Amino acid sequence: MLSKKKGRLFVISASSGTGKTTLARELLKEDKNLVQSVSCTTRPPRPGEVNGRDYFFITKSEFLRRKKSGGFLEWANVFGKFYGTPKKEVERHVRGGRDVLLLIDVQGAKQVKHTEPKAVFIFLAPPSKEELKRRLEKRGTDSKNEILKRYRVATRELKALNDLKLCDYRIVNRDLRKAHAILRAIIHAERL
Amino acid sequence: MLSKKKGRLFVISASSGTGKTTLARELLKEDKNLVQSVSCTTRPPRPGEVNGRDYFFITKSEFLRRKKSGGFLEWANVFGKFYGTPKKEVERHVRGGRDVLLLIDVQGAKQVKHTEPKAVFIFLAPPSKEELKRRLEKRGTDSKNEILKRYRVATRELKALNDLKLCDYRIVNRDLRKAHAILRAIIHAERL
Repeated sequence: MLSKKKGRLFVISASSGTGKTTLARELLKEDKNLVQSVSCTTRPPRPGEVNGRDYFFITKSEFLRRKKSGGFLEWANVFGKFYGTPKKEVERHVRGGRDVLLLIDVQGAKQVKHTEPKAVFIFLAPPSKEELKRRLEKRGTDSKNEILKRYRVATRELKALNDLKLCDYRIVNRDLRKAHAILRAIIHAERL
Repeated sequence: MLSKKKGRLFVISASSGTGKTTLARELLKEDKNLVQSVSCTTRPPRPGEVNGRDYFFITKSEFLRRKKSGGFLEWANVFGKFYGTPKKEVERHVRGGRDVLLLIDVQGAKQVKHTEPKAVFIFLAPPSKEELKRRLEKRGTDSKNEILKRYRVATRELKALNDLKLCDYRIVNRDLRKAHAILRAIIHAERL
């Protein structure tokens, strides 16, 4: 009997405003063996977001029910909205031999490090705190208050990451084209 | 008049025992536009080391004279032996359009960050302190006392690096083949 090779789990963590969504989209487009695990969230969809592609948009009570039954690989409460990675979906892909890309924050990555220590952990860091602030402001989808909150969280995360023995690769994301080429190389190298 | 494109400076820092010498040798072999800057040192050559290829082996008084006249991009006193990167040699390569690879320790990288902030800084980290110790012992060229000293310096460096805003890329070097592929990708991406 042939035993199919299992997929790998790639965890990319980054603060808001580091361009991680754009990078993930590019990687997924060009690499047919890489799939993104779609997260569940209780926050409302932003313009252009599609249920089941960008997120599974679920109610808070549904989220809490699934969390209680151990249905999430990691989960977080971000400014009162819940986010979580459904365990079953990741397992299904990995068993099917596909590599899974998880786009989660630092707290989430810490949880995955605990449950899936063999995953590959990559952190995208902003070039500087000033640049991070500029990028958050430029995004334009958030209120001033929310930008400030995100900025505070992001700088706290950066600090936490410096102490962290968690990540296998840390990339300062100065230029999306460069970061993209290097992420691609990391995924290829890990398949060696 | 044609103005020739200047080369880039790649600074690779790693503690002893992370395999940086092997990695650099591979990169230089396959990439003809990449040259290694040969450092000066006052320590005696190890078996197999060639003057002018591995190091310029110079006397302490010669080293101090050149240091005083600002001849080094960075320099260090490691366990009583001096190491330094000759400024002129790096400048000559860069003006000639070649990319220069500097293999230096964290303290040296800090000095270069100050004088050449646009250089690309890469740090190779050992997977764990235990693994670092094992690798240092395995090398077998150093006495027990020297291994212990190197280990102490290396763990101090690791700690310093966690706080450092210095490096553009940090790679945990679990597997030489992987680290090599990713270093190559970084060099190519930075040329984009």
